[in-house]
Amino acid sequence: MANLLTRRKFLNMAGVAGGSAAVYQMAMVLGLMSGRTHGSPGIVAPLGKTKRSVVLLGGGLSSLMCAYELDRAGYECTILEASHRIGGRNLTLRSGDLIDELGNQQHCRFDDELHLYFNAGPARIPAHHHYVMHYCRKLGVALESFTNVNYNTWVHDTRAFGGKPIRFRRYIADARGFIAELSAKAINAGAFDAPLSSEDLERLSAFLKSYGDLDADARYRGSSRAGYRSPGVLAPTAGMLEHPDLNLPLGLSEILKSDFWKWKMHFGEKNDQSALMLQPVGGMDNIVKAFVRNIRSPMLIRAQVKSIRIGNDGVTVVYQHRGEHKAIKADYCMNCIPMHLLVGIDNNFPVAYRKALSATGRLKFFKLGIQMSERFWERENIYGGISWTNQDITQIGYPSPRHSRQKGSRAGRLSLRP
Amino acid sequence: MANLLTRRKFLNMAGVAGGSAAVYQMAMVLGLMSGRTHGSPGIVAPLGKTKRSVVLLGGGLSSLMCAYELDRAGYECTILEASHRIGGRNLTLRSGDLIDELGNQQHCRFDDELHLYFNAGPARIPAHHHYVMHYCRKLGVALESFTNVNYNTWVHDTRAFGGKPIRFRRYIADARGFIAELSAKAINAGAFDAPLSSEDLERLSAFLKSYGDLDADARYRGSSRAGYRSPGVLAPTAGMLEHPDLNLPLGLSEILKSDFWKWKMHFGEKNDQSALMLQPVGGMDNIVKAFVRNIRSPMLIRAQVKSIRIGNDGVTVVYQHRGEHKAIKADYCMNCIPMHLLVGIDNNFPVAYRKALSATGRLKFFKLGIQMSERFWERENIYGGISWTNQDITQIGYPSPRHSRQKGSRAGRLSLRP
Repeated sequence: MANLLTRRKFLNMAGVAGGSAAVYQMAMVLGLMSGRTHGSPGIVAPLGKTKRSVVLLGGGLSSLMCAYELDRAGYECTILEASHRIGGRNLTLRSGDLIDELGNQQHCRFDDELHLYFNAGPARIPAHHHYVMHYCRKLGVALESFTNVNYNTWVHDTRAFGGKPIRFRRYIADARGFIAELSAKAINAGAFDAPLSSEDLERLSAFLKSYGDLDADARYRGSSRAGYRSPGVLAPTAGMLEHPDLNLPLGLSEILKSDFWKWKMHFGEKNDQSALMLQPVGGMDNIVKAFVRNIRSPMLIRAQVKSIRIGNDGVTVVYQHRGEHKAIKADYCMNCIPMHLLVGIDNNFPVAYRKALSATGRLKFFKLGIQMSERFWERENIYGGISWTNQDITQIGYPSPRHSRQKGSRAGRLSLRP
Repeated sequence: MANLLTRRKFLNMAGVAGGSAAVYQMAMVLGLMSGRTHGSPGIVAPLGKTKRSVVLLGGGLSSLMCAYELDRAGYECTILEASHRIGGRNLTLRSGDLIDELGNQQHCRFDDELHLYFNAGPARIPAHHHYVMHYCRKLGVALESFTNVNYNTWVHDTRAFGGKPIRFRRYIADARGFIAELSAKAINAGAFDAPLSSEDLERLSAFLKSYGDLDADARYRGSSRAGYRSPGVLAPTAGMLEHPDLNLPLGLSEILKSDFWKWKMHFGEKNDQSALMLQPVGGMDNIVKAFVRNIRSPMLIRAQVKSIRIGNDGVTVVYQHRGEHKAIKADYCMNCIPMHLLVGIDNNFPVAYRKALSATGRLKFFKLGIQMSERFWERENIYGGISWTNQDITQIGYPSPRHSRQKGSRAGRLSLRP
């Protein structure tokens, strides 16, 4: 029976990892195995004079990575992609582009300017995604910073602060202040499991003051970190220039009413969302283009897989192309079709595997790109990052880092769970 | 007596703000006055047929901003700069540049490549520095993000963690965990001044768990935010791919031994150091160049001010240029010479003013740029940001965002207080 490689999550669920050395190596290529902190992925050993064919299902990034390495090792690959474009979830929209999601066709009507594009799929790369980073370096995809966290953005929850938006910096600094103040009280209450030395206690007390910007009495009474009430940096008073008033601390009860703290506040602390995030200069699909330029294997678009049959000496895939059904037989098959789409395709996979496939749920998720005639958010000192709301549009992303242009695009993200 | 305008800090100390409408307007231009959150600074009213001259002392950015606005209002300006270059503290070094600080001459020996430059003076612009932002926009200085905080950088204190460097993310996440855990204990101890509703208490408890990534018992036992012990994202175990082990929490006592929490940890929380910071593409001195291109007034370099005498109908400035002493008389004088240098210049300023001048101290501060043949920090997933040490070189800055190139430059900063 030929070997079947699906995506990371699927491997986790179905427990079908292992298999031949080639599959192991491909798992290395796809970054599914540990062993290296960085650098190049495991390279597939060259075939020599042996002939081996691979059919790659789906034209997304994992498929392109496989094709790239297998090409170089001497495998004969064919990529079958159901849609009208190569790239899968990696999708950058520019003036005139066709969007064909779930049969609902749209054309992108942005002005035809280089900086007016929208990464409708993934938009950021964590620095520890070594294999993506490896291929960007290897294939010459220029990278720049992606701003995930910006203290000048807004937090807007209709249930708190009288329904008014609050600056991210203010919420964060005040929450920190209250938490530090509360911790300082715990020290006084001696709330420790194990005794701390008096030196440690002294340091802890100083630490908490520093952490929350507390006053000498370990009270939080506002902080320059939270920003100022009056605009400007300095204000003239009686012939002197003095600092304007600090923002008053937000009430703890109000802070707790908002849902910002439930996960949005900690979003940028996550291992895969924390600074520094990266993005390709000019659009995420530059990664796709770089692979396409460097892959010799044929790529068929509008080739919809209808059936996958695994036999003792290989795999047979039937696909529909230009109205016709065609069959392709290969020694290996790499499945790069998303799970929820694979469910609807005829196959003879092991029962447990099929059961796992059909058990997976789906999310509804929107990402919306809007072109604005003026970058009005820059008037609010917002250059990149995300504003958060408790409404259907949970996130409003700002372009980074193409600052100080006339026009700009914003991304709104709407995520609904089934 | 003519009006004398010095820098913000000096105005604060000496209390000499106020004066004529022109000076008030210039203070607006320099961003010293509040009144606008953003946008354009106050513009100097056009003179009409009146003739007015201004001598600008020093060729730094404040002087260039004054000259730019006064030029347009019809004032006759002259800029006197003591050194061999215009720009003052705003200094970008490239291959072959002369550095002449305190008479200690050096030539920059970086390779002659566009991305190998070093901002030896200021390196970042906070998004709320509206006036700098205004001129960048107006004069077409392209801006990009500057990475101040990066969770992948190192925290290195020889007195803690066996002298080994710790990842920023690990220190931050573990400290947060301990603080949240401690706060949760304070809730149980009922350490509140005012009673909180049971609903608030419940929310607070959930908030703290979310804040510190605590477990169901409100204990911190490590977090994916702190990163993993083994490299890679997933490891194969018994045919399954599972997450590798989390880093063990750092000991609280060890965390407290390091000096990272004293201010370095909170550096990126400060109003003027928090995300998003900006930088001109290609070097900070692009701001200087943009002003120089747009100023009509003469700028004399190697023109060292020797004496400033304020009279009833104007001000007389004597300066040395090409070995000769020359005098210039103007209706106004804008002083943009740093305080510590002004002290040594003959003047007839008011006594209180001179006293304040001489009372100011000086810091010793180094900034060191090094070209590396390989961007080895990128192998550690470091793309921009700062590593912190407890040694003389307190900060090690990484280039941002010119990622994934072969060669790179790093900045080390050594700061000694007198």
